[in-house]
Amino acid sequence: MRQLNLNLFVYPAGHHEAAWRFRGAEPHRVLDITYYQELARRAEEATFDAVFFADGPSLPDNVRYASRFRLEPFTWLSALAMATSRIGLIATASTTYLEPYNLARLFASLDHLSGGRAGWNIVTTGAPQAAQNFGLDEHPEHASRYARADEFVRVVSALWDSWEDDALVIDPESGVFADDAKIHPIEHAGEWLRVRGPLNTPRIPQGRPVYVQAGSSEDGKAFAARHAEAIFTAHQTLGNARAFYADVKARVKAEGRDPDLVKVLPGISPFIGSTEAEALALQKEFDELTQPEYSLRQLRQLLGVDLSGHDLDGPVPREKLPTHEQRGYGSRFQVVVDIIDRERPTIRQLLHRLAGARGHWVTAGTPEQIADRMQEWFLGGAADGFNVMPPYLNGGFDAFADEVVPILRRRGLFRTAYEGSTLRSHYGLPRPASQYGSLSGGGLRAR
Amino acid sequence: MRQLNLNLFVYPAGHHEAAWRFRGAEPHRVLDITYYQELARRAEEATFDAVFFADGPSLPDNVRYASRFRLEPFTWLSALAMATSRIGLIATASTTYLEPYNLARLFASLDHLSGGRAGWNIVTTGAPQAAQNFGLDEHPEHASRYARADEFVRVVSALWDSWEDDALVIDPESGVFADDAKIHPIEHAGEWLRVRGPLNTPRIPQGRPVYVQAGSSEDGKAFAARHAEAIFTAHQTLGNARAFYADVKARVKAEGRDPDLVKVLPGISPFIGSTEAEALALQKEFDELTQPEYSLRQLRQLLGVDLSGHDLDGPVPREKLPTHEQRGYGSRFQVVVDIIDRERPTIRQLLHRLAGARGHWVTAGTPEQIADRMQEWFLGGAADGFNVMPPYLNGGFDAFADEVVPILRRRGLFRTAYEGSTLRSHYGLPRPASQYGSLSGGGLRAR
Repeated sequence: MRQLNLNLFVYPAGHHEAAWRFRGAEPHRVLDITYYQELARRAEEATFDAVFFADGPSLPDNVRYASRFRLEPFTWLSALAMATSRIGLIATASTTYLEPYNLARLFASLDHLSGGRAGWNIVTTGAPQAAQNFGLDEHPEHASRYARADEFVRVVSALWDSWEDDALVIDPESGVFADDAKIHPIEHAGEWLRVRGPLNTPRIPQGRPVYVQAGSSEDGKAFAARHAEAIFTAHQTLGNARAFYADVKARVKAEGRDPDLVKVLPGISPFIGSTEAEALALQKEFDELTQPEYSLRQLRQLLGVDLSGHDLDGPVPREKLPTHEQRGYGSRFQVVVDIIDRERPTIRQLLHRLAGARGHWVTAGTPEQIADRMQEWFLGGAADGFNVMPPYLNGGFDAFADEVVPILRRRGLFRTAYEGSTLRSHYGLPRPASQYGSLSGGGLRAR
Repeated sequence: MRQLNLNLFVYPAGHHEAAWRFRGAEPHRVLDITYYQELARRAEEATFDAVFFADGPSLPDNVRYASRFRLEPFTWLSALAMATSRIGLIATASTTYLEPYNLARLFASLDHLSGGRAGWNIVTTGAPQAAQNFGLDEHPEHASRYARADEFVRVVSALWDSWEDDALVIDPESGVFADDAKIHPIEHAGEWLRVRGPLNTPRIPQGRPVYVQAGSSEDGKAFAARHAEAIFTAHQTLGNARAFYADVKARVKAEGRDPDLVKVLPGISPFIGSTEAEALALQKEFDELTQPEYSLRQLRQLLGVDLSGHDLDGPVPREKLPTHEQRGYGSRFQVVVDIIDRERPTIRQLLHRLAGARGHWVTAGTPEQIADRMQEWFLGGAADGFNVMPPYLNGGFDAFADEVVPILRRRGLFRTAYEGSTLRSHYGLPRPASQYGSLSGGGLRAR
């Protein structure tokens, strides 16, 4: 029977913007690796598929009132790999601001040291301030970022394939350490990148890391259809999630790929209580910890307009918002506009609505209700699983692991034990063969 | 009393080129992180200052007969950090092939997760094949690599300073997470690099990682005098080591820096036996495992001439070698020429001479003799400590840790316990203050 895939999306003190102020949070441990190790171990005990770290190579704005710094994913996940043995480790890394050779090495090493648990969340980096940290005057525009990303994925795939599986010989008797006929320069010279190769690391346990993608723009969906094996996405309603799911699966099929081998994983940020009233009260407690100065600046980034002069308890001035065309790309913009049109919130209500998980699905209820809603999305053609985004950590994840996971297991919707030890095995994905495997001879030996 | 600083230089199966063929080596574990964790734990039990990983972003030539692949240092050392609690972790990273923002983040994270144990071996990357992995037609020339490196160090130093020590507030009551007046854009626009900053990570335990450098060219020594806090170097004789030591310390002084705060650490690769004859027999066993086809290709890279047509048991044809001027930079070339002129070896003898540690000091003897020789260099103005390069691992390091270290301790030459828990404390180096600390106000808050 088809089962859910569940990732834990790790965010320092939790996904709610005021999480770090909550009585149950541990904000003084946000730079303490043992805090994250405890979390990864808990997720592994709950037989989650993976832990996931977002990332970007710049300091976001608006740092005064919330935890906005970044943990570098490769180092952090390498450390978490040592505290766990089965759970997948998904690192976000940018095709715009990393060189493919460096990125390929970092993932190869993470996969080796974790025994085949690496996943790559492929991003093109949307934050314009990143460009200024890399000597660029202007942030590269969306279409060219995706064109480079497409070539980048082909380059690093070739690098990960450049040592065939049996290139490493290690025969002390004959004196042959590696079969240089099975190590291949990739000789890539394309529009955006030139990389000779081969990689300087033997082939990795998974062949290649699992390819994950999260863009929901047109370019993003086209890219996902070609490359992604798992897709992170944000939806507020079953209807929207279902439409996205059908669209993406159709695009995957149109690319000649098997839609079952591309997992669609919306975010869910659950407030859990022993009664629904308790869960809603918990959510309300978080909302009251938000700080309007912070929230309004976040909203300005999403919408492109500053609402800070308006009455917080008055309606959102719909006429001031840009159109989708004016706003350009950025599917999260549409999520927010949909909320405004559907729910007609006051500004304060909208701020609270978005404080939970930056546009992801926030839902409050009993463990049974949360499980029901996840099941509805899963069986209703809206999700293959979820990116679980606890409003606060580690307690918010404990509530999910201790109370929601057992219900999902009883219903046969989620594994009770790992069957394999690689991220590919958790997702039911095949191990890719090296594209050089069918060549006879050649490689470095021929030169 | 002044004491030795000792690092363990980790190289997959050991530093001798035939190490992986030796009966006591574990070549099948060269990609197994637990093998390196055992090694790091052993080095920590021996109260070593640090473990050190060399690196380069390309696959070296000559891969058939020896272990030539690379372990990516940031991921690997992050994993080793989790198996240890005191020992320093020195990663090699290139100023030519990494972006300063990315490098600054990787070290910041390594220092955070290890509790202040990161060291940066600053290299400009000499391997010409690296350029072709990064879209360049030609390897950047030596002088321009060093000019960029100089600016690069200033940029990343500013990034590491960009959060003042007390910028992180985390006061749930007031709602202030970070004091944005104490987070500073660096606004760097120089000849080689433009980086706005600030870094997206709070200030690290050590302020900055320890700066290590290993180039012995003129440019390299000038660079070290300005920036290095530890210098790795290769010398075959006490005389040469002493001359280098005096030269470097004088250059440091001329830069207005304290020579005692720059540790000079030559490499030593010791064959250890219970008698001198046993140690020499062990070394001979290694020599007999070398493969001339491999060794001759290595020699060709060092000297720039191919001696493979010559009688291995005849003399090195001195007249065929290029001059130092023809050979250009590369201090290792001079080390080899000195051996030829001093010892008049046959080609085979020269191959064996270099098989041990690629030009570093190889010495065979009893534990007492090894300790005597180290003491002679240490007290004789040639070294502040050593980069220990065991000919094979892990056994070759066990012999050093179990038999040489106790002698050095009895003589008062080496610590018996760690006094601190950061690499800076092991080396006796101060923690740098942030260059932005004296500014009043400003930072992101001002904008």
